[in-house]
Amino acid sequence: MAKMKGFRKLTNVAEALQIALKECSRVRVGTEMVSAECALGRMLAEDVIAQHDVPPYDRAAVDGYAIRSEEAFSASQSNPAIFRIVGVAEAGGGRKRVGPGEAAEIYTGAVMPEGADAVSMAEDCEREGDEVRVLRAVAKYANVSRCGEDIKKGEVVFRKGHVLKAWDIGVLLSIRMREVAVKTRPKVAVISTGSELVEISDPRALDETSLVDSTRPMIKALLAKAGCDVVDGGIVHDEIEAIRDRISNLAAQADLIITIGGTSVGGKDLVPDAVGGVQGSRLIFHGIAAKPGKPLGFGIFMGRPLFMLPGYPVSALVGYECIIKPMIASLTGTPAKEREKVKARLTRRVPTTPGVRHFLRVVLEREGEWIKAKPIALTGSGLLSSVAKADGLVIVGEDKEGLEEGEVVEVELLGD
Amino acid sequence: MAKMKGFRKLTNVAEALQIALKECSRVRVGTEMVSAECALGRMLAEDVIAQHDVPPYDRAAVDGYAIRSEEAFSASQSNPAIFRIVGVAEAGGGRKRVGPGEAAEIYTGAVMPEGADAVSMAEDCEREGDEVRVLRAVAKYANVSRCGEDIKKGEVVFRKGHVLKAWDIGVLLSIRMREVAVKTRPKVAVISTGSELVEISDPRALDETSLVDSTRPMIKALLAKAGCDVVDGGIVHDEIEAIRDRISNLAAQADLIITIGGTSVGGKDLVPDAVGGVQGSRLIFHGIAAKPGKPLGFGIFMGRPLFMLPGYPVSALVGYECIIKPMIASLTGTPAKEREKVKARLTRRVPTTPGVRHFLRVVLEREGEWIKAKPIALTGSGLLSSVAKADGLVIVGEDKEGLEEGEVVEVELLGD
Repeated sequence: MAKMKGFRKLTNVAEALQIALKECSRVRVGTEMVSAECALGRMLAEDVIAQHDVPPYDRAAVDGYAIRSEEAFSASQSNPAIFRIVGVAEAGGGRKRVGPGEAAEIYTGAVMPEGADAVSMAEDCEREGDEVRVLRAVAKYANVSRCGEDIKKGEVVFRKGHVLKAWDIGVLLSIRMREVAVKTRPKVAVISTGSELVEISDPRALDETSLVDSTRPMIKALLAKAGCDVVDGGIVHDEIEAIRDRISNLAAQADLIITIGGTSVGGKDLVPDAVGGVQGSRLIFHGIAAKPGKPLGFGIFMGRPLFMLPGYPVSALVGYECIIKPMIASLTGTPAKEREKVKARLTRRVPTTPGVRHFLRVVLEREGEWIKAKPIALTGSGLLSSVAKADGLVIVGEDKEGLEEGEVVEVELLGD
Repeated sequence: MAKMKGFRKLTNVAEALQIALKECSRVRVGTEMVSAECALGRMLAEDVIAQHDVPPYDRAAVDGYAIRSEEAFSASQSNPAIFRIVGVAEAGGGRKRVGPGEAAEIYTGAVMPEGADAVSMAEDCEREGDEVRVLRAVAKYANVSRCGEDIKKGEVVFRKGHVLKAWDIGVLLSIRMREVAVKTRPKVAVISTGSELVEISDPRALDETSLVDSTRPMIKALLAKAGCDVVDGGIVHDEIEAIRDRISNLAAQADLIITIGGTSVGGKDLVPDAVGGVQGSRLIFHGIAAKPGKPLGFGIFMGRPLFMLPGYPVSALVGYECIIKPMIASLTGTPAKEREKVKARLTRRVPTTPGVRHFLRVVLEREGEWIKAKPIALTGSGLLSSVAKADGLVIVGEDKEGLEEGEVVEVELLGD
């Protein structure tokens, strides 16, 4: 029997992540121009400097009458300042002009008429035909949104590395930027290995005993959601040469490569072995102290980081969550949101192995004041339904020797 | 002066949301078939029933030797059961057969050979040439993942209304579902009104005094992110007839309509007025007790819910967050994640009006043990940079009469 089980040394989860982050910090993602309207969630590749003032002109901040403030600086109820109304200024209506002793009816957002430098609010005025009586003193620029008040021309509006939010899109357009330079999305290639696997689109998927590849579509969905540009590498058979060729092809196109399966097949470590002997390639670790998730490997293939996920979907998911997700977040600049957590009481004892991080799937049930966490019975990490049926995850640290019945645990809710 | 300011009655924010949710509960989104691989985040329109067992056959859960358990039920170190090895069973390698007294070398994931009903783990065996000695008793189905153990044929795997997560995609493929029936994405039309506005792609956007529409692209980005199918209604001039025509056209294509601007223009309520007099249309409320955000309206236009957002970007954003976002979440079945919150001390007094919900943009700074929240000075809700520059939002309830300097407030972080 080639090698019935086991890895020479299991790497601690935290250490594995550190190694992956360090190696991936060398990944250089490119820069591309995208339309500002489509830049949500993208990371700026350059500082954004305003080429225009916002607002682009002085405008009325309220409805009222635009006047020369010096003509109403001492206006009051008993000593009103009287103006002749010469027009109406509305948003989009073009620029008006008021001369001495004149006022323009003005509405919020309208360009301030030439000659006017303040707006007397409607409630401080009395109108009679073509005349308006201003009953309250008005200071220079009162009720005027000044040109450049929001953003000044030449101002650095966003720094390089900033990840654009929805309102930032609004800001970019308000300074009339049509396109912005952003970092390209990390290009991630995903390959499944396994002679037993078929694609869902393959006619053989209809055979009663066929095994449809379900792990790769799950990982692809997770990557797309995390903002990656996914390169689908398909399924490759359990042959070292075929695996090596497929990875080589993908290494030329992608920033990172993820293989699924082939880390412990028929006693052979096909993918780790495929990495060996290739120029610029090396295996950095193989096997992490996680349950499920142990057969995870990581290396460099032709200069590209290569994650080797186990084929079993739950193990692959744990590997993705622990190592790949935080690594992608570091590349896109968008830290993954932490899951919501609740405290619950465990309904039964769960033995765990010290030194290994355990990922326990639990179903939650309310019981009076408390929430109960029922561990889902498991026979193998192939059982994806254990995740789909679970409400949450209990992560048992390496320092624990099992959890007791009734113990209060923190449950991460499996929102998405 | 037509109507210088004011709304007949301001609707409380909570009440406005209740009204919108109630009216929108009548929206009937359709059903469509999508490829299971692309169904992440979609809401199931039907129960999903497994048409196949998972796993589709009995398979080895460990590496070892496949045998007939009855031949090793009393095996022990001192009384080993001896088998002749007749082959190797690997994942994807086709089904083998073992007869009485025979064993097959087997690897995790391989189909159980015909005749075998248990796997003796490699570490409980000693091999010598073509023979293997089993040193430990083996029960029926020991170390075998049974056919249907994960999911049974006929089982309801997901209920109608369930929103698909990444691992659910894996589950769908493992039961060999190529397509699933999901609810269509809510179709939301967005129109800007405003004679002063130009598109960023319009050559007039280069004029120093042009005002590029920035609110509509921001709202479109928010809607797309929330899982809507956005119908872009463009910009329409400040004319009641033109607005009414544009909304009518869009009402035929969309489930919901959002207008931006035209709720309080030049003293005229263009959009609310456009709703009047149209068959099947009515204004339900106009003006909410929010600052910024007051000029929000809601009604029904030709049977479709119509949200009237103010044109100023910050007001529009508040309206989106308070009313539209929770409403979209109710349609897509994906509750918007709550923002992360931190406690901070306010650096200065902020007056607020009782009965009005205030949305205060603050910048956070660490000061020793504490976090300080500095309110951003505001002159108007046109200042989108007040949101872009802010770290968080303090929501001041209707029961408050301002916040005191040094008061501890809850700050919602503006993550996205």
